Amino acid sequence: MEDKAQIQEAIKTQGEVVRKLKSEKASQEQINEEVAKLLQLKASLGEGDGKHQFVLKTAKGTRDYNPKQMAIRERVFNTIVGSFKRHGAETIDTPVFELKETLTGKYGEDSKLIYDLKDQGGELLSLRYDLTVPFARYLAMNKITNIKRYHIAKVYRRDNPAMTRGRYREFYQCDFDIAGQYDAMIPDAECLKIVYEILSELDLGEFRIKVCLVSSVTVRDKKLWCHVCNHVCYSQVNDRRILDGMFAVCGVPDDKFRSICSTVDKLDKLPWEDVRKEMVNEKGLSEASADQIGEYVSMQGGMDLAERLLKDQKLSQSKDACDGLSDIKLLFTYLQIFQVTDKVVFDLSLARGLDYYTGIIYEAVLTQAGVSLVSAEGQNGAPPEESVNVGSVAGGGRYDGLVGMFDPKGRKVPCVGVSIGIERIFSIMEQKAEASAEKVRTTEVQILVASAQKNLLEEKLKLVTELWKAGIKAEVMYKKNPKLLSQLQYCEETGIPLVAILGEQELKDGVVKLRAVATREELDISRSDLIGEIRKRTSEA
Amino acid sequence: MEDKAQIQEAIKTQGEVVRKLKSEKASQEQINEEVAKLLQLKASLGEGDGKHQFVLKTAKGTRDYNPKQMAIRERVFNTIVGSFKRHGAETIDTPVFELKETLTGKYGEDSKLIYDLKDQGGELLSLRYDLTVPFARYLAMNKITNIKRYHIAKVYRRDNPAMTRGRYREFYQCDFDIAGQYDAMIPDAECLKIVYEILSELDLGEFRIKVCLVSSVTVRDKKLWCHVCNHVCYSQVNDRRILDGMFAVCGVPDDKFRSICSTVDKLDKLPWEDVRKEMVNEKGLSEASADQIGEYVSMQGGMDLAERLLKDQKLSQSKDACDGLSDIKLLFTYLQIFQVTDKVVFDLSLARGLDYYTGIIYEAVLTQAGVSLVSAEGQNGAPPEESVNVGSVAGGGRYDGLVGMFDPKGRKVPCVGVSIGIERIFSIMEQKAEASAEKVRTTEVQILVASAQKNLLEEKLKLVTELWKAGIKAEVMYKKNPKLLSQLQYCEETGIPLVAILGEQELKDGVVKLRAVATREELDISRSDLIGEIRKRTSEA
Repeated sequence: MEDKAQIQEAIKTQGEVVRKLKSEKASQEQINEEVAKLLQLKASLGEGDGKHQFVLKTAKGTRDYNPKQMAIRERVFNTIVGSFKRHGAETIDTPVFELKETLTGKYGEDSKLIYDLKDQGGELLSLRYDLTVPFARYLAMNKITNIKRYHIAKVYRRDNPAMTRGRYREFYQCDFDIAGQYDAMIPDAECLKIVYEILSELDLGEFRIKVCLVSSVTVRDKKLWCHVCNHVCYSQVNDRRILDGMFAVCGVPDDKFRSICSTVDKLDKLPWEDVRKEMVNEKGLSEASADQIGEYVSMQGGMDLAERLLKDQKLSQSKDACDGLSDIKLLFTYLQIFQVTDKVVFDLSLARGLDYYTGIIYEAVLTQAGVSLVSAEGQNGAPPEESVNVGSVAGGGRYDGLVGMFDPKGRKVPCVGVSIGIERIFSIMEQKAEASAEKVRTTEVQILVASAQKNLLEEKLKLVTELWKAGIKAEVMYKKNPKLLSQLQYCEETGIPLVAILGEQELKDGVVKLRAVATREELDISRSDLIGEIRKRTSEA
Repeated sequence: MEDKAQIQEAIKTQGEVVRKLKSEKASQEQINEEVAKLLQLKASLGEGDGKHQFVLKTAKGTRDYNPKQMAIRERVFNTIVGSFKRHGAETIDTPVFELKETLTGKYGEDSKLIYDLKDQGGELLSLRYDLTVPFARYLAMNKITNIKRYHIAKVYRRDNPAMTRGRYREFYQCDFDIAGQYDAMIPDAECLKIVYEILSELDLGEFRIKVCLVSSVTVRDKKLWCHVCNHVCYSQVNDRRILDGMFAVCGVPDDKFRSICSTVDKLDKLPWEDVRKEMVNEKGLSEASADQIGEYVSMQGGMDLAERLLKDQKLSQSKDACDGLSDIKLLFTYLQIFQVTDKVVFDLSLARGLDYYTGIIYEAVLTQAGVSLVSAEGQNGAPPEESVNVGSVAGGGRYDGLVGMFDPKGRKVPCVGVSIGIERIFSIMEQKAEASAEKVRTTEVQILVASAQKNLLEEKLKLVTELWKAGIKAEVMYKKNPKLLSQLQYCEETGIPLVAILGEQELKDGVVKLRAVATREELDISRSDLIGEIRKRTSEA
């Protein structure tokens, strides 16, 4: 242990840090962080007094889920898993840590965000960074070439947390993937159908699903930023058939493809005029080429756009572009049958991608004005242009090469999948619950067995035993002689809709007084009819 | 990278290790471990060739759950959570890691089994070792004094794994706890009711719940061994009112209590004669005292035993013993009302306990001959006496002091809880599924939309879209023109009970050929009646 005086000095300094932050109106998060350090110092001083003091907090960037948050989480999971199961998915689970080398070489720059375990002898281990790499490892290890699976589990990133914006170091991923060698675009279309179903059923407001052959990552702080998982993501674009074709026919020289692509990247932050200026003035592209690119990247549509572009005099000269456009056209044929084309847009302006994507890519965005996370971002001093993409709640695409990286013989297993941005959805649902008058129930209890008089504990326990036996969710208070008022208050607080009140008279008459908490209506009902009546009244629960 | 020749030398040596183990008929686990090392060495040699090779394995002591295991896991969870919810429990979740100091001082000797995270800058973190300490931290941190919650999550222990016996380094705990200041024995009785319900519903065979005021831990390798979670557990006995009273009235000198207690501990491994010999010859107890202890510890019963002991001339002289026995009597009053006394036994021979228990303690044991884990233990060279307790599948008790350890002011929150030994239950259920003819389904798909002729993909997609819309779980194969036989085979393999077969004629007639996979019966049904018919036929699914 350090010297007491030293610690007291440190406490003084740290106290000043906190005061300074407060006077500067720093973010609450930052203040909390520094206050925690202060408390830790004070606690370490306390240890010297023989009494051990703990800093009562969770690790940085993590949180507990309280019962209310869990109730919302369960509702969201039920909707999502319901859709996955309707489409015939199995589920798997993998350990929270993997051999360090399993993760090595999969995340590029972001490897430094991986949590390593301490070397306590034995294997070198790391916490999983996503569910995709463990999935690929699982397929290769078990030589599985066909599977439709979902996996909902927590992943870990030593990222800079921004908890008010729903960005944590421990957070859920919710992945659905179809692996196997199949005919083109059928599983891909089903993934989009699933996103459509889930976002509709969760009732998050209007949304749009953007489809392209490259993806949804923005450059922020020189790192690629994924708007779906709200974290730094994989780098580099991999497959860009339409984009490459487009560049070629617009007269972009081969050696400028990558550089022009990164300029197109900026379209969601800068107006076209600025992007054009950069292309011409900084990248040395001809004005004519830039204008042609400008025409293409402003295009949005559906089947019609793909058909029009296939007939486009210039674009149709590129085999790459034609192949890509034919795929998009086939995709939209299936999407029409699936009745989801009202929300799906073929969008040429999204020109970015994750490392492992090799084909079709999509992103679902909430478009309704007032998605609450937008304002939350604004409040915390994030640049306003970020709010453009802030409603991203799902994303995914095709990655045919990843599993082969794990197979000793490099055998490929084509995969297509979708990741639901579940932490964002939690945040939105929590804020909606907060704003609405409806109380979030944390239990499903249908009835409280109560008493109006003293000394009826055993009679109440008898009744509650009967109810449990019938599968009714029921409670009794753990006091011998609780007041009737406190029993009724308990129902109000926890949302229990019914009370069965026992008294001497009721016991004599073989009845129960059944009270509806909301209306305060009471009626005497025979014990034999009670269970049927409870079921009838709470059948929607 | 090491020198190639060096690695080749190591591969040779490691190859001999493996051959030796095989010739010695070592455990498969040990052989696998060494084979993995061999493969790793070979892989590291491969790296030199420019192609990176991975060792495809999960970390030691961990496993993936495949879809079949997940289906069983989901069934077990549904039963358990169903019971928790019927009793009005909420649920919470906590992060997988805690500040290292939160765990410090809670697990005694076993702290060395805690997984620490590498110090990558920032806080020092450890993976959670159980769910109880995070629960206590959560209560103290949020100043919660009343809660009835369950928590099902994975915990981590750097233990010696024995995976064939269901002992892992990453494993589930499944805890239900009632915190709050309540009248005696009411929540305690409900915990026992819940254990009774869960074990009955899971249909694991005959079971018995042993109740005492101290618990179910055995000394193995000089460490306390918990038969419920199948891991090294907390140490030291805390509250032993009945036991202490019993020792006192039997004439055990105060300073010999602990030493005699540890001898009584051995009763589940040694016959009474040997225990008695140790007491008299090694511990210097009088023969009369030893015989009196022998009488008491052989006692098992219910309410009747508590009543008889309360009237016992000797035992009634000890206030400690009387208090404890009165509590047991009250508990049995409630257990009678809950209709669980056919399985609950008051057992004086269990004389051990976990560090944090402070009152009633219980353990549920499967008693049916042939619980498969028994033979699994035998096969792996475990000493035969261990099989005595091997059927333990739930345990718990009262711990009134733990939360206070986290509260800065030491405020106590009384708690009672139960932990379901879910890994053991998984193992038993998996073995039962393996042994039975019944196929474990990994999806809930009700119907496959199939075709007898070519070029009907779009028609199939139309039909499956209708079914999904109606909430039917349905699949279609991802091939344009699959053979009818391969579609029917898919149903057989995955247990899909129904097939909707489309053909040119059916489309013309506005019908679907509905085939029952099990009986091969087919009938034509109009499109408008299809959904109702599917629901009717799969209503039990």
